Amino acid sequence: MKYVILVSHGEYANGLKDALSMLSGERNDVISIGLKNGKSADEFAIEFNKKIKDISNEDEIILLGDLIGGSPLTTAMNVITGKGLMDNTIILGGMNLPLALTTILMKDVLDKNVLVEQVLQEAHSALKEFKIELEEEAYNFQVYDNNLYYNKGGRKYVSFIYSYR
Amino acid sequence: MKYVILVSHGEYANGLKDALSMLSGERNDVISIGLKNGKSADEFAIEFNKKIKDISNEDEIILLGDLIGGSPLTTAMNVITGKGLMDNTIILGGMNLPLALTTILMKDVLDKNVLVEQVLQEAHSALKEFKIELEEEAYNFQVYDNNLYYNKGGRKYVSFIYSYR
Repeated sequence: MKYVILVSHGEYANGLKDALSMLSGERNDVISIGLKNGKSADEFAIEFNKKIKDISNEDEIILLGDLIGGSPLTTAMNVITGKGLMDNTIILGGMNLPLALTTILMKDVLDKNVLVEQVLQEAHSALKEFKIELEEEAYNFQVYDNNLYYNKGGRKYVSFIYSYR
Repeated sequence: MKYVILVSHGEYANGLKDALSMLSGERNDVISIGLKNGKSADEFAIEFNKKIKDISNEDEIILLGDLIGGSPLTTAMNVITGKGLMDNTIILGGMNLPLALTTILMKDVLDKNVLVEQVLQEAHSALKEFKIELEEEAYNFQVYDNNLYYNKGGRKYVSFIYSYR
């Protein structure tokens, strides 16, 4: 199986898994773990080892971390290396929701290299400033990216469109 | 005050706030809120309104969201617009830990436009694949980006360096 493992400081990875479950349903191929405040890297290593006990050489791992060079991701990498699983592991740092979501949705249909390229592209393109365009005319409705933009009483509004008819 | 507000599906934003508290301490200028599974956008709007009740026209908001176009961020923007605070608000989507951390650390020292540029740059540069370079020689030690890389018994290892002497 191809596992997606989310690793972070604190509750970040677990929170991300929760958001993912809302968008893609509960899945048994997504694992999350966080280094809790006050815990040592060694304690985290033991806990991480338990989390991946069922993963073998026949599986693949896509390891998403909060911060490259940070203690949680580095410790996870050490454990994976110790179990001889590093050759089947892809590591991506700076994870966000679009990265994790695209990874989950595409991991079983795309080749490894294409997958990395695609998910990083999705993650980068989602990471940006959102600017509301100023429109001078009242009620100047514009639909863009599932959002409805309009002006009313000199103010700008934006609404997400849930469904079209 | 300049507030950083984290908004997401599920527990993602709360989890990110938890990770941030480990790295930058507990702060009263960071607010987090998630649209919980099964809750409506209207319920979320009411909850969000409560969260920002103390924010006035004299404050500034840096709104970080999980997904531009998603219901939580769009609802938050609607509430902020309704309170007449949108002119003092910056909105960034696709948040990750480096984005949020850099925003918190730099928001009070940088001008608005420079801040956006800087934090997005940090967030993008952290979002990448981490590749362990293959080295054929045993114990070929290399130090890079606070990590120590070496080979042992034909395997590659990497360790995070906590401190130098």
